[in-house]
Amino acid sequence: MQRILGIDPGSRVTGYGVVDAAPGKLSFVACGTIRVAGEPTFASRLDAIFSGLNEVIQLHQPQVVAIEDVFLAANPRSALKLGHARGAAMVAATQNGLAVRAYNAKAIKQAVAGYGQAEKRQVQHMVRVLLGLTGAPSADAADGLAVAICHANQCYVSGDR
Amino acid sequence: MQRILGIDPGSRVTGYGVVDAAPGKLSFVACGTIRVAGEPTFASRLDAIFSGLNEVIQLHQPQVVAIEDVFLAANPRSALKLGHARGAAMVAATQNGLAVRAYNAKAIKQAVAGYGQAEKRQVQHMVRVLLGLTGAPSADAADGLAVAICHANQCYVSGDR
Repeated sequence: MQRILGIDPGSRVTGYGVVDAAPGKLSFVACGTIRVAGEPTFASRLDAIFSGLNEVIQLHQPQVVAIEDVFLAANPRSALKLGHARGAAMVAATQNGLAVRAYNAKAIKQAVAGYGQAEKRQVQHMVRVLLGLTGAPSADAADGLAVAICHANQCYVSGDR
Repeated sequence: MQRILGIDPGSRVTGYGVVDAAPGKLSFVACGTIRVAGEPTFASRLDAIFSGLNEVIQLHQPQVVAIEDVFLAANPRSALKLGHARGAAMVAATQNGLAVRAYNAKAIKQAVAGYGQAEKRQVQHMVRVLLGLTGAPSADAADGLAVAICHANQCYVSGDR
């Protein structure tokens, strides 16, 4: 059994999800969002992301962290801000002695919905189905769970384990 | 008197400089570089930047942090990596309760060399002169000192103090 913390970093909202994974089995542990748009400065936003994830790690004691990749895509300025947020999130992991695995959006969608171009709502729906949740997590929390599930699949489904 | 830590973040080399500033007076405290190119993963590089700056802060106890801005410029992929490094550096400051002030390259060059397009060697030379150093700090450490000096000027030279 492996406890995985999945993180979907954002400069305004960071989604996270914690799952327990074993061969052929996935269990929901927790999920949520860290909202930092109300912070007075960009530095305090990054600080809130770091501190929020640090709390999640202390509380749920994951063994590994999976995080969504950032691409430069359409808006490079947003990507740069997101890079700062992702850096703060990664340091929260490493300062707790956790390894960080990165997955791109296509691989994550493929893992949860079987289709690399799946839409956000489809991801949300499939995360709910795969973890047997009665309620739907928010879109950002679902993205956190999705990257954790993606890492679980890498460990226990594909080829060698 | 104010003790200022200046940081020039980089995904390979982060330069830093610590100065004591008072109206009309600047004193050198320390400077150096955090080299992380040898780290095995990008995550461990960010971790080394955070930990390295954390050590510098613990040792020299600055009261404020000044950091160089990142621009997207010629190579947006490098800027994205640099964004991660800068995020890690900013969190090292905020986790120690320090405010972070950002300055762009032009303002920093203007502050130390009186000319916003000054070359790297000119910055290195002027930092040495302004702080009365007998030896020349490395280019990266000089950039760290330069951003600290830029913040000192903002506090004690321009208009209201």
